[in-house]
Amino acid sequence: MTFEEARAQFPVLERFAYLNAGTTGPLARATVAAVVENVERDAREGRSGTAWIERVLALREEARRGLAAVMGVATENVALTESTSRGCSIVVAGLGLAPEDEIVTTDHEHFGLIGSLHASGARVVVTGADEEAILAAVTPRTRLIATSHVLWTTGRRLDLDALRAAGVPLLVDGAQSAGAIEVGARPYDFYTVSPQKWLCAPEQTGGLYVRDPERLAVRMPGPFAAASYEPSGAFEPKPGAARFDSGFTAMPALAGLVAALGTHPAWRYERAAQTAGRFRELLSEVVEVVTPAGNSTLVSFRPKGDPAELVASLHGKGVIVRELPGRNLVRASVGWWTSDDDLRRLVAGVS
Amino acid sequence: MTFEEARAQFPVLERFAYLNAGTTGPLARATVAAVVENVERDAREGRSGTAWIERVLALREEARRGLAAVMGVATENVALTESTSRGCSIVVAGLGLAPEDEIVTTDHEHFGLIGSLHASGARVVVTGADEEAILAAVTPRTRLIATSHVLWTTGRRLDLDALRAAGVPLLVDGAQSAGAIEVGARPYDFYTVSPQKWLCAPEQTGGLYVRDPERLAVRMPGPFAAASYEPSGAFEPKPGAARFDSGFTAMPALAGLVAALGTHPAWRYERAAQTAGRFRELLSEVVEVVTPAGNSTLVSFRPKGDPAELVASLHGKGVIVRELPGRNLVRASVGWWTSDDDLRRLVAGVS
Repeated sequence: MTFEEARAQFPVLERFAYLNAGTTGPLARATVAAVVENVERDAREGRSGTAWIERVLALREEARRGLAAVMGVATENVALTESTSRGCSIVVAGLGLAPEDEIVTTDHEHFGLIGSLHASGARVVVTGADEEAILAAVTPRTRLIATSHVLWTTGRRLDLDALRAAGVPLLVDGAQSAGAIEVGARPYDFYTVSPQKWLCAPEQTGGLYVRDPERLAVRMPGPFAAASYEPSGAFEPKPGAARFDSGFTAMPALAGLVAALGTHPAWRYERAAQTAGRFRELLSEVVEVVTPAGNSTLVSFRPKGDPAELVASLHGKGVIVRELPGRNLVRASVGWWTSDDDLRRLVAGVS
Repeated sequence: MTFEEARAQFPVLERFAYLNAGTTGPLARATVAAVVENVERDAREGRSGTAWIERVLALREEARRGLAAVMGVATENVALTESTSRGCSIVVAGLGLAPEDEIVTTDHEHFGLIGSLHASGARVVVTGADEEAILAAVTPRTRLIATSHVLWTTGRRLDLDALRAAGVPLLVDGAQSAGAIEVGARPYDFYTVSPQKWLCAPEQTGGLYVRDPERLAVRMPGPFAAASYEPSGAFEPKPGAARFDSGFTAMPALAGLVAALGTHPAWRYERAAQTAGRFRELLSEVVEVVTPAGNSTLVSFRPKGDPAELVASLHGKGVIVRELPGRNLVRASVGWWTSDDDLRRLVAGVS
């Protein structure tokens, strides 16, 4: 697949310099076609019966394989979820934390992660978003380190292997990494994927890698959690991470996710990193860029004026980026589909 | 809207006697059109920006109003969820139950309910599925009674007001009631809706009525739970039940839900009850019907031969019903869209 072919998959790119996959990615024609085909078939043939449920189950396994490949892990260690928030809730609920337990996290996390951490009832210890600060905050009471792989704010990439040195379970929010940069999640305990972002999938899809499914309790069982169950609800969990499957992903969204996973070219990570690097350099000439070089496909910068006004003004020029409220930053998301012309439009609009 | 007009909304009814809304309802043309229109717009214009998020929020409030009307409750007491299982998890997690606490439930519940009850860690007490047995099982340690309004197995409707006499919080699984029979959920503590069934909505939609939101902890915060939050994840919940909103319902599913809620005629409950009653009588002449008269829009019966074989044989004749595994029963779901011809086809296939 050439760059032109890969890019031509996305209708939104015909009109916009769409630089906001960090919020939600562009949708490819094949993804839309899968959604439309499935909802129309469901309306025509009904949403029940053996053939229908077999199709759902087959698509679930195809989606699971695809998300496992994105994370570089074994398929049986991946649960299908509805969001990264859900994945985080599954982990903290399953750990069964007590008020005297501690979770270490950073001051650059999304509510999808920290909301779940707080709701666990454990004490949440907030540190600066760097490896040394995180490790220094670990105590004998620490039961979990929970952090993004790539910070959604500055785009800084954390060294997860350095964090493993603490010998504490590690929950990684992969919202800004999975599908954007090459990920090898196998060594970490828990890793979430938000396919609606860099994987360009429909919303309400998600993945959660669990390194050792047997060691995490199932506290929010979905309809596919049990291999068998009793009238009291006591159940034998499915083998592997499928026990954490959190819901019945809608057939159109599921088919859309599988289709979206098929739109990604082999050269995606290399190209996105190169484009983001080039963009970082171009933008550094006109404004203060806070994303360190070589870290991610996010490029965050501090505009000279008001960030909200700049975002609105860029939108008027067909350039889609987002503001980071309270941080005085604007963030551009650079994908493997981003062209030099997209970059020039943004730089011109910022200048 | 005449019966013919109401029925003509559903493509699946052109070919099938589709009698399985108790699993998943038929999809109307307007619902499909809303899904298709929204996924195509999202692909063309992108899934971010002020206009997009405002549209999401407006649709969420429209869906909330619609589900509140279905349950006969105030809009501010309704949370948007992704499923009935999720609604049940939200409630049991929020109650913060201990191992010595007890939950009373029946031996006719779906895993979506009892799986969550078991995962709470409390002791689950299983009784027969009638009001007397449930009340007799309540002890000073009982923290929750959790039961269906209409049993998914036999279609028996429980007298919820009788259960309130126990003075214990009541969680009602409304999967087979909301949209099928008139529901007034206001007096009960928690009531779930599964819109993909009798409301004919897309999958991965849901509603949860919470009578007193202030008295239930938010243990699985979704992206819309917080009015404001701190870096530790500590948050000020939104007013009302919106704090329990469990996820970001996909734009196409959300628009589909709103469209589906607009397809229901005013006479829906009356017509469905009449048709179900007539069907119960017709079927009683050829087979043992276990659903009591006047209880619900489900009609469950014990076939003379093997239930699975009968379901397959009926499917071959274009009649869609389901088997109830382990109970030697077949279940037909009678909707306001069901015609006399649908009934005749089923009775002929069973005879």
